[in-house]
Amino acid sequence: MSKTLIFGHKNPDTDTIASAISYAYLKQQIGEEAEAVRLGEISKETAFALDYFNTEAPRFVETVKNEVDHVILVDHNERQQSVSDIDDVKVTEVIDHHRIANFETSDPLYYRAEPVGCTATILNKLFKEHGVSIPKNIAGLMLSAIVSDSLLFKSPTCTEEDVKAAKELEAIAGVDVHTYGLDMLKAGADLSDKSVNDLLTLDAKPFTMGDKHVEVAQVNTVDPRDLLAQKAAIKTAITHVIEASHLDLFVFLITDILTNDSTVIALGNEQAAVNEAFGVKLEDDIAVLKGVVSRKKQVVPQLTDILA
Amino acid sequence: MSKTLIFGHKNPDTDTIASAISYAYLKQQIGEEAEAVRLGEISKETAFALDYFNTEAPRFVETVKNEVDHVILVDHNERQQSVSDIDDVKVTEVIDHHRIANFETSDPLYYRAEPVGCTATILNKLFKEHGVSIPKNIAGLMLSAIVSDSLLFKSPTCTEEDVKAAKELEAIAGVDVHTYGLDMLKAGADLSDKSVNDLLTLDAKPFTMGDKHVEVAQVNTVDPRDLLAQKAAIKTAITHVIEASHLDLFVFLITDILTNDSTVIALGNEQAAVNEAFGVKLEDDIAVLKGVVSRKKQVVPQLTDILA
Repeated sequence: MSKTLIFGHKNPDTDTIASAISYAYLKQQIGEEAEAVRLGEISKETAFALDYFNTEAPRFVETVKNEVDHVILVDHNERQQSVSDIDDVKVTEVIDHHRIANFETSDPLYYRAEPVGCTATILNKLFKEHGVSIPKNIAGLMLSAIVSDSLLFKSPTCTEEDVKAAKELEAIAGVDVHTYGLDMLKAGADLSDKSVNDLLTLDAKPFTMGDKHVEVAQVNTVDPRDLLAQKAAIKTAITHVIEASHLDLFVFLITDILTNDSTVIALGNEQAAVNEAFGVKLEDDIAVLKGVVSRKKQVVPQLTDILA
Repeated sequence: MSKTLIFGHKNPDTDTIASAISYAYLKQQIGEEAEAVRLGEISKETAFALDYFNTEAPRFVETVKNEVDHVILVDHNERQQSVSDIDDVKVTEVIDHHRIANFETSDPLYYRAEPVGCTATILNKLFKEHGVSIPKNIAGLMLSAIVSDSLLFKSPTCTEEDVKAAKELEAIAGVDVHTYGLDMLKAGADLSDKSVNDLLTLDAKPFTMGDKHVEVAQVNTVDPRDLLAQKAAIKTAITHVIEASHLDLFVFLITDILTNDSTVIALGNEQAAVNEAFGVKLEDDIAVLKGVVSRKKQVVPQLTDILA
């Protein structure tokens, strides 16, 4: 089979980057020609992990059809989160831990999704299934992915399998996961140089819920007050995004990685869905969602249930 | 977790029935409450296998929501091939070897698809991954599924992994796969008591290709001439199905399990797609497709490419 490209979602997070790098390494070890690429800028959190484990970031691409006929997706499957010309290539494999939606193939493929907290946890199994040992730097990146997606094991998305995989990877990577992990999360939560528009696009994902178009963006912080001081500017920017992208709802989550609560700013015609989905009452378009840290488990299904 | 039901597609074939039985057994062994059920009549081929390996057929159900909140799909994922109230329950797992289409969830799930010839081949791996040994009768049914889906290893869908799994299962089941397999296929190819309408519905699957509605039915036989003698009646019956189901195309494949060729009868507004897809010319709505035995690999992708 000719060369394949392996990539995660747009607005890449640490799991998307680490999983692309790790799976490309595994593929190379079993004799397949594969290269990890990325669809967007590296975040500060991911840069911290790549730098710590002395690994280069994958190459940035805008399209893939100009290079290959077939691709492998990690950490996503929904078409609108993928490369812009995804419909022009064949998806031969998906390794993911999200819901399945807006995904269709004309041929059978290898699809491995598990309801765990992190794609890297599934990849840890695949390394074993193929009998390939994980080098120190790859283990460090996979561990970083689990720390990132689980907020140091505190997210409700975190499963026993993630904790078990992290313990195995911690030993190979030669770090203390709690010390290293908090340093990495703090590096990612440094928003001091971000513009308001940056905040809305750093980690934003579009979803189709029923016939509604919804975007859910999330930032991690160690002090939400810094961001809420800019709430007027944030709301203006959200209004512009809603108009430009014809959205029915924009949900902006500001997640405090120390208290594990999120503050939500929600705008759009379907704004009331937030009250219903979370049992809160938006005041001035803002509400606090106690104990909510996971977009995937605590936000998207709840909104989908109301809107779909 | 409360009880789950495990089932394959409507118009069940041997893989669908064997996989439901086998996966329910595996689930029970790892302490989960699971029951195999079926969505349609048992075929003669499957009845031969169940009888030979002294196993009861799964219970027939028309709906599932009245019994359970969540289900596991084997050997299919497309909504229109599943139970009628599939949208009212949560799909927690899929084990399959088909393309993915018309499938969407609001939550993450376990999805294990591999591009192999038979669901039972994937289940053979899952038994190993869970460290559960396969009893003789279950091994016999899984072997029957591989024989059925691969037409005794002759279909282009058959992979090295299917052959390897069959060898392992053959040893456990204590049969000679070639002797047993041909007997089983012949039992399934006995169409002597079937009405024309039976022939069209025995193993029929609906597909959406682009915005076209297509049904592809297939029967196995040891002598296509018996069926072609009834071609006028078959064509009348197909015309009725097209009208009743508002189809754009009905493709009826008569597959000779001894020569491994298929005769196709195609009707509907999109009939010309058959000429284009297979490089043939329908005469009197009929053409011979040399070496075509696999709906999944040699018919559906080719028609989808033309119609989508």
